[in-house]
Amino acid sequence: MIKAGIIGGSGYTAGELMRLIQNHPKATVDFIYSTTNAGKPVTDIHQDLLGDTDLIFTDTINPDVNIVFLCLGHGQSKDFLEKHSFASHTRIIDLGNDFRLKQDADSFVYGLPELNRKEIKAAKYIANPGCFATAIQLALLPLAQNSQLTDTIHINATTGSTGAGVKPSATSHHSWRNNNMSHYKAFEHQHLGEIRQSLMQLQSDFNHEILLIPNRGDFTRGIFATLYMKTDIPLATITEQYQTYYQDHPFVVATTENIHLKQVVQTNKCIISLEKKGDYFLITAVIDNLIKGASGQAIQNMNLMFGLDEKTGLQLKSGNF
Amino acid sequence: MIKAGIIGGSGYTAGELMRLIQNHPKATVDFIYSTTNAGKPVTDIHQDLLGDTDLIFTDTINPDVNIVFLCLGHGQSKDFLEKHSFASHTRIIDLGNDFRLKQDADSFVYGLPELNRKEIKAAKYIANPGCFATAIQLALLPLAQNSQLTDTIHINATTGSTGAGVKPSATSHHSWRNNNMSHYKAFEHQHLGEIRQSLMQLQSDFNHEILLIPNRGDFTRGIFATLYMKTDIPLATITEQYQTYYQDHPFVVATTENIHLKQVVQTNKCIISLEKKGDYFLITAVIDNLIKGASGQAIQNMNLMFGLDEKTGLQLKSGNF
Amino acid sequence: MIKAGIIGGSGYTAGELMRLIQNHPKATVDFIYSTTNAGKPVTDIHQDLLGDTDLIFTDTINPDVNIVFLCLGHGQSKDFLEKHSFASHTRIIDLGNDFRLKQDADSFVYGLPELNRKEIKAAKYIANPGCFATAIQLALLPLAQNSQLTDTIHINATTGSTGAGVKPSATSHHSWRNNNMSHYKAFEHQHLGEIRQSLMQLQSDFNHEILLIPNRGDFTRGIFATLYMKTDIPLATITEQYQTYYQDHPFVVATTENIHLKQVVQTNKCIISLEKKGDYFLITAVIDNLIKGASGQAIQNMNLMFGLDEKTGLQLKSGNF
Amino acid sequence: MIKAGIIGGSGYTAGELMRLIQNHPKATVDFIYSTTNAGKPVTDIHQDLLGDTDLIFTDTINPDVNIVFLCLGHGQSKDFLEKHSFASHTRIIDLGNDFRLKQDADSFVYGLPELNRKEIKAAKYIANPGCFATAIQLALLPLAQNSQLTDTIHINATTGSTGAGVKPSATSHHSWRNNNMSHYKAFEHQHLGEIRQSLMQLQSDFNHEILLIPNRGDFTRGIFATLYMKTDIPLATITEQYQTYYQDHPFVVATTENIHLKQVVQTNKCIISLEKKGDYFLITAVIDNLIKGASGQAIQNMNLMFGLDEKTGLQLKSGNF
Repeated sequence: MIKAGIIGGSGYTAGELMRLIQNHPKATVDFIYSTTNAGKPVTDIHQDLLGDTDLIFTDTINPDVNIVFLCLGHGQSKDFLEKHSFASHTRIIDLGNDFRLKQDADSFVYGLPELNRKEIKAAKYIANPGCFATAIQLALLPLAQNSQLTDTIHINATTGSTGAGVKPSATSHHSWRNNNMSHYKAFEHQHLGEIRQSLMQLQSDFNHEILLIPNRGDFTRGIFATLYMKTDIPLATITEQYQTYYQDHPFVVATTENIHLKQVVQTNKCIISLEKKGDYFLITAVIDNLIKGASGQAIQNMNLMFGLDEKTGLQLKSGNF
Repeated sequence: MIKAGIIGGSGYTAGELMRLIQNHPKATVDFIYSTTNAGKPVTDIHQDLLGDTDLIFTDTINPDVNIVFLCLGHGQSKDFLEKHSFASHTRIIDLGNDFRLKQDADSFVYGLPELNRKEIKAAKYIANPGCFATAIQLALLPLAQNSQLTDTIHINATTGSTGAGVKPSATSHHSWRNNNMSHYKAFEHQHLGEIRQSLMQLQSDFNHEILLIPNRGDFTRGIFATLYMKTDIPLATITEQYQTYYQDHPFVVATTENIHLKQVVQTNKCIISLEKKGDYFLITAVIDNLIKGASGQAIQNMNLMFGLDEKTGLQLKSGNF
Repeated sequence: MIKAGIIGGSGYTAGELMRLIQNHPKATVDFIYSTTNAGKPVTDIHQDLLGDTDLIFTDTINPDVNIVFLCLGHGQSKDFLEKHSFASHTRIIDLGNDFRLKQDADSFVYGLPELNRKEIKAAKYIANPGCFATAIQLALLPLAQNSQLTDTIHINATTGSTGAGVKPSATSHHSWRNNNMSHYKAFEHQHLGEIRQSLMQLQSDFNHEILLIPNRGDFTRGIFATLYMKTDIPLATITEQYQTYYQDHPFVVATTENIHLKQVVQTNKCIISLEKKGDYFLITAVIDNLIKGASGQAIQNMNLMFGLDEKTGLQLKSGNF
Repeated sequence: MIKAGIIGGSGYTAGELMRLIQNHPKATVDFIYSTTNAGKPVTDIHQDLLGDTDLIFTDTINPDVNIVFLCLGHGQSKDFLEKHSFASHTRIIDLGNDFRLKQDADSFVYGLPELNRKEIKAAKYIANPGCFATAIQLALLPLAQNSQLTDTIHINATTGSTGAGVKPSATSHHSWRNNNMSHYKAFEHQHLGEIRQSLMQLQSDFNHEILLIPNRGDFTRGIFATLYMKTDIPLATITEQYQTYYQDHPFVVATTENIHLKQVVQTNKCIISLEKKGDYFLITAVIDNLIKGASGQAIQNMNLMFGLDEKTGLQLKSGNF
């Protein structure tokens, strides 16, 4: 069994890791670290686990676990790793954004399996992608691989309230968020860096603008993204390229049918819909922000690192409604 | 024009008062007091008023206004009034619970117009009822007046997230509250005191149990309450009593049809549905917790105190969907 | 009093007209026509009006009313008017799309007050704009007036479930729509024609693409639209132009602050937020699809046609939460 | 592998069965029968399964499957079984209400594992309990077993919109249901018969009233039920009885902590909270109406019938938010 430690245990992504590992046949949670909740049962915070676990939050790490998941606020992972040491065999997956960009990465591999599966298998340290970044990259990777990103990319993407974390705030208050919509950080979202980096990994001359408007949606889970770009390549050609690209990636499905967000909620899947309208190629991509956009992808990376089938523990019943 | 001051200006009930008074033909907001937001435009907090008002939050009261609305946390009104003085002609409506019970009331009149309209007209100080208390009393007053509360009263009532106030908390987080339901303070809600007091005002020998389970609902506004009691009085008799009781009360409608919460949302109305199933008399009552359950009722009381038609400024378009 | 007839009385826009006219000081509903509901109380369908109206749906028109509102399915207004005659003085406002384009318009004036106020005042027949069209035009008119629409316009707009009408369907089922998101008719929405027509009315040489992705949102009311275009005009200049354009239009507010959808829900307002990010000018516009996007705008047009203040009966309490 | 047939394949419970069996290690869907959708891919209706299954709806049964799940409208199962024959070894689980009451049951066993596990293991035909009935029985069985149901039982239970089925209707329209609440069939719900039957199976002299108000909630999945009864038994005693009763039932957890609906959504669990307030014993029970209240319980029954561990294929990640 893979013994896992979870750092930053009271947040949403830590909770999802707990839920996923609990049903994972080859892994177990060795400890879940939370300075604010140390000594309390995990079920005080992740109340749905009542009856499933007796684990207690701890403020002491076990440095000898096989893998550590860092579920800290962005910018806090480096700091944590400077203050705590793990065994030389311990693998680390950081769900924050500290090591995603190559200039910060040290020996961390960018953990998008559909881009870097081979490198992930050999990696000791993984920087798990951001949620918006996951949906957007999966929507664009086949184009990049074929050097077809030849114009400005226009993206509008809406995220659920879990995307903003468990800490209550004005814009996550139910009275405000219910039946509401707004945007934030238009054209300036922090995930643009990792997106561009991955696209350039496949299409090194890519230098077009990526215009992203991120929205706050009136739902709890998921990312719904539409992307379009001018191109004269026929839809049939592009569709074939997408299906080829993803044919051996079990969590990504490309289709020409209309799709909706709840097709993937509660799963590790990404569904991508492809359309051509006149000169414009329109891509729609949907993921669950906490699973394929965070904790599920982390488990997928863990599976690859430990030589397991990528899908182990990730064949999840869709929420759907 | 009635010059009004609002104390505790950044909360939900203060915002609703701003919205209501702004369209009220005989009243105007003279000042809106908020120590935390003093100096900021009101539209920084009540953003929907953008374009409608240039008012600035102040930390200075105008002691000479015609009426003051206290929108403070429960227990803070007494303290505020000890520290601040108003002109001898200034009327006061407290939306908190400091003066609702007779033992605490001093010269405050309990401001439920359908119970105490005559006294309200003559009052200088009003204790505005609680939201659950409003719905439940309106559902029971005709029975009490006819001394027909002759058995245990069973009540289940669900409130929206605005009922918990603007301050973010774990149970008002959208990720938690959306698609969720829970209850709190079962059989022990603080509004039971004022409910019993009003029922005994009409039926002095009333001494049966009132069993109330309050729920947190998955909506923002409104209270949906069902109440039942064993009785052998025929439905037709009771229905007639309700219609008689409320015939000159413009905001309360009694019906024998099925009802739903959104019939009253965004209005000052209370709709009451009456059914008889075997020996059980079942009453359903719906109100908007922030309007008939708080700020609308406060305006209704203001209208009565100043000799205006009760409905002035309160003929609101229903939200409905 | 203006005597109004409503045709197609069981739908959402007819219901909103009932609610608005009921509180309008200068108008009254003379009849509400519905072949499917003839003989039933209006409150059977518009249940929130219980206690407010005793009106009965009719299948007989009164041809002598002062104004008729057509709330029929798109394409049915022409047919209705061929089969029914009204008095020569009777004014007509069509809320469908039969007369919006000049080639179909006969003597109908396009009823966007912020574009055609003078013509509306003199008009006998009005084609009320579509909901997406209203939000998008209000977001762009000042640019068009200054001949500044000099590049492709990128629009992403999300509408609530009331936008799809009262008839139940798979994509309006609560189990499907709740916590979901999807798009439809990308780049091909039927409102693009009226949008282009209005922009060309102000900027006759406008010939750039308008790329619109309409989304189905997880809320009941409102349109949240973001629009952007490349331009080198400074934000301050544009902002001043917007404020100048809308300074005597009481329902439109231009701001440089962040906005959100619920600032306008339940009102006839449109709030427009202006930003500049690099070369891109980003506009956000929010309206209530049933009020400023339909029935409220129809009342605004009626007010203008009858020489009333534009705001009469339309100073509505914001829903906000 | 257990080969399963699903009859009535386009509804919610059939979809959930598809999702559950797909990840079940010992079962496979042999055919999914739908007369209205015969010939179409299953993913046309259950769109979340895109990429997971190539199954086509059929209007032909395979009479030799190991198990058949009937997901038909209430009252249609008998009719279906009269018209279609299965092999003598084929087991049947009816998710409708045709065989739940003993007078209708023929050889069907009432499939509540926490009541009839031994009989289920030996059964060939199972009548799967109703969703409200499941939550309510699980909340009361330990009391019945100890002959402690000694007074009227008061129940208020709220269900999500999936409880009303996939067919669109006025009260499942998102515009109506969102942010709304209502009740239906007060004191007369059709599940009362099977509830009373089960309680009398354990406490044969039980003859008190069961008063149930079912509500339509503003969420898609789940049942939130509160139940109370007068009793002088101490909480500690009752709690111990509940924990004893459920100690070897893996899906039911009894606690004295506060609970909320989303603790069980997307799982086969039932969490029961126990409180005593004065003389009143208050029970709160939450389930997912489609899983423990329907398809998950059907799989649990299948597991028992085929000698598998009850939990096989049912260790589901909680939805939680």
